[in-house]
Amino acid sequence: MKISAVTVFVKPEFIDGFIAASKIHQSNTIREKGNLRFDFLQCRDDPSQFLFYEAYESEADIDLHREADSYRTWRKTVDSWMAVPRKGIGYRAIAPCESSQYRYP
Amino acid sequence: MKISAVTVFVKPEFIDGFIAASKIHQSNTIREKGNLRFDFLQCRDDPSQFLFYEAYESEADIDLHREADSYRTWRKTVDSWMAVPRKGIGYRAIAPCESSQYRYP
Repeated sequence: MKISAVTVFVKPEFIDGFIAASKIHQSNTIREKGNLRFDFLQCRDDPSQFLFYEAYESEADIDLHREADSYRTWRKTVDSWMAVPRKGIGYRAIAPCESSQYRYP
Repeated sequence: MKISAVTVFVKPEFIDGFIAASKIHQSNTIREKGNLRFDFLQCRDDPSQFLFYEAYESEADIDLHREADSYRTWRKTVDSWMAVPRKGIGYRAIAPCESSQYRYP
């Protein structure tokens, strides 16, 4: 299982557009093979800061995700809206460690 | 629902102890009233960096968590092992937004 947390800072004038585009991307991503979860969150203290908490069965599934139309469209749409390059951090699950605990019900 | 992502950097010599203490704390926390999830993760590129991805039904449940013996014991055990003060960021869930999607199966 591969888990990552991706932080995105969006230029204030594009926050609404970023949310709209990312909601569509989220609904597409959770239907992809190997995706366990894809939580899209907004920082409470800074509405321009967002987090994507993503879990996939394998690295190959992440590769497929990045090749998918949804990801390409999302990147093309939102890349210029980011205030700084997005920052992704890869994690291994310690507890719980079973992929079944990360999959949406 | 209240979601937070807490990043902790641990002094290298205390990594094993931190993992052991945090696994116990995780197993206690997920039994607490109002806790939906408490994922404990280690950064793949930096074994001294950890993430707690936590979801609670309400702010009151977080208050109860911080008053619990498990939290007090964990803090007392690990506080001096942190290389820098831990950093927690509070989020609101955009998608999915239902608490049922954050609760462990």
